[in-house]
Amino acid sequence: MNRVNSIVNAYLLVENGIISAFGPMAECPESPHKSRNMEGKWVMPGFVDSHTHMVFASSRHNEYVMRLQGKTYAEIAAEGGGILNSAKRLGAMDEESLYRQAYKHALQAIACGTTALEIKSGYGLTVDSELKMLRVIKRLKQTLPITIKATFLGAHAFPSEYKDNHNAYIDLIIREMLPRIAAEQLADFIDVFCDEGFFSVKETDRILTEGAKYGLRAKIHGNELGLTGGVQVAVKHSALSVDHLEHVGDKEINYLLNSNTMPVALPGSSFFLKIPYTPARKMIDKGLPLAIASDFNPGSSPHYNLWFTWSLACLYNGMMPHEGFNALTINAANALGIHETHGSITKGKKASLIITRAFDHINEMPYWFSQNHALEVLV
Amino acid sequence: MNRVNSIVNAYLLVENGIISAFGPMAECPESPHKSRNMEGKWVMPGFVDSHTHMVFASSRHNEYVMRLQGKTYAEIAAEGGGILNSAKRLGAMDEESLYRQAYKHALQAIACGTTALEIKSGYGLTVDSELKMLRVIKRLKQTLPITIKATFLGAHAFPSEYKDNHNAYIDLIIREMLPRIAAEQLADFIDVFCDEGFFSVKETDRILTEGAKYGLRAKIHGNELGLTGGVQVAVKHSALSVDHLEHVGDKEINYLLNSNTMPVALPGSSFFLKIPYTPARKMIDKGLPLAIASDFNPGSSPHYNLWFTWSLACLYNGMMPHEGFNALTINAANALGIHETHGSITKGKKASLIITRAFDHINEMPYWFSQNHALEVLV
Repeated sequence: MNRVNSIVNAYLLVENGIISAFGPMAECPESPHKSRNMEGKWVMPGFVDSHTHMVFASSRHNEYVMRLQGKTYAEIAAEGGGILNSAKRLGAMDEESLYRQAYKHALQAIACGTTALEIKSGYGLTVDSELKMLRVIKRLKQTLPITIKATFLGAHAFPSEYKDNHNAYIDLIIREMLPRIAAEQLADFIDVFCDEGFFSVKETDRILTEGAKYGLRAKIHGNELGLTGGVQVAVKHSALSVDHLEHVGDKEINYLLNSNTMPVALPGSSFFLKIPYTPARKMIDKGLPLAIASDFNPGSSPHYNLWFTWSLACLYNGMMPHEGFNALTINAANALGIHETHGSITKGKKASLIITRAFDHINEMPYWFSQNHALEVLV
Repeated sequence: MNRVNSIVNAYLLVENGIISAFGPMAECPESPHKSRNMEGKWVMPGFVDSHTHMVFASSRHNEYVMRLQGKTYAEIAAEGGGILNSAKRLGAMDEESLYRQAYKHALQAIACGTTALEIKSGYGLTVDSELKMLRVIKRLKQTLPITIKATFLGAHAFPSEYKDNHNAYIDLIIREMLPRIAAEQLADFIDVFCDEGFFSVKETDRILTEGAKYGLRAKIHGNELGLTGGVQVAVKHSALSVDHLEHVGDKEINYLLNSNTMPVALPGSSFFLKIPYTPARKMIDKGLPLAIASDFNPGSSPHYNLWFTWSLACLYNGMMPHEGFNALTINAANALGIHETHGSITKGKKASLIITRAFDHINEMPYWFSQNHALEVLV
């Protein structure tokens, strides 16, 4: 986690969008290719944002103001707020408008250095709306130059009409949503919000088992609200990642140590909701890797600037700057199953790169906070 | 504090850099002037950053990492860190290099919407270095298009050779620094860091009294580390502002209520140092106005993005979005004594304006955090 290699005065050769060679300038080969001088700048791998909800109908600034006024999340939900609010608004918006908005957000995120991105459904919560969201994500994959992965999160919350009949909604997910999503090849992964007041471990287990039949590997929302078993069910299903983890005990750490599941911290939502930060220091000290992501969404983390996510991770999750760098690049690529093509400057990987101004030291990148340090982003 | 007027579909007329008229589009006068269409955007007054230390020699990312590793401020100071570290580095840097760096920082701040700026000395702490800093600020005034005010902060900390002889350093400030600063007209205001371990109330009183003889109105660093009398001495001297105020009791509030002194909160340093946030909600509820500023400096607040300062003020100082807007514009202009020419869209004021993308509501400006919302900044 705490090692980042760099070369002062280096060359980097890109052919057909792929890194074909790099090394000290003295070893730079003669090349017929177009060349650019990056002297005085840093060239680093593009960020991977492995957890976002980038497709949504509108901001939820009214709920934000209610929270500033001291209302609790429960009171806001009782007045129609929360995930169900996003779902209601998304249901009323056409696919084209949703696409146009998400496209704009994605361009802004790319300008901040994001060159690979996960986007979840989960503001649909009906067959039609979940499919609509996933089709928007599919279209973003086709039109944006970056790598995008789609995660089906039908199990984000129980719609109010199912709040006393969980099984009926889970049946809807399993019998109607999953087959159609698979038929249209709309999802790469499947996610469940496994937590107190959302989906139980048993319900999560059932949904993941069905998702696996369609080849959808799991990415889990877990342990945001307590020690509620999210880590255990994620590891049981060899989930690609388990995300949030504001509550992690020794038992959870041991499960993760014996797994292929990448833990993912989301400092932006801790900052915005004022909930505990994932205890990254403790987890890393016990031998775990860690990724960090923006959790970009209109309810709990309205930001996509991963430079700031990095700043938060250092100041409030107890990570060191180098650890944050790895958490945003190679480990985030791992959490998205794309580490063989993204997340580092390595021969054969995609040449998705961030060019920054000259810093004295990598420590300065999270130190100067709330800026976008990318002068240029190459995809 | 909590009222911001706006006009949907408006015109704004600028003549010779001054706002000469504005109102609903239907009332727009015929004009021979060049016109620009801002349809779909917001036009708002430029931000005023009333408290910065923008002139410094280098970043202090090494101290940042020491803090991340768990070292205390006292331990870091013992290893040569803190204000004295900045002073040592600044002493070794020539005026031209200092100027070039500060100029770059200022351009970045302007790009984020800052159109008036205070800059303090105080990393000099010798006659030559304090004068050097103030000459750099004077040159910035001449070369940058925005309004800049210079504050003499020779009383920022006691240099180590004076730590057991405070009076000798205060004599140096009064007998050598002040007369030369006045002769070269290098300062608009005078500041003292009045707090535990820094300058006592009595020492502060003496320095402000001498400063007043040269026409330098006070701006005070006070109540950052405790209820240490900074507010009282500021009010006694009719200070323009008293800044920091992480510790404010009812007594301090009552002093401020019966004064012309603007309280200024610095959320960025609370965020970065993890110290308490100024209790803005309580202060406003008791009837006080409030300004907020970046406190841009390399030790305790390495940021100048006032959009983010606004986000922090809402989430962590208990301010509402409209209050944050006033705190960054008209109240900040008041804290800098420039409210007759800056801080609002008012006939006769300078046309220093921020153009943002279309927001549904002003609440969205602090809600979408860690971005720069200025598409364009007109000075």
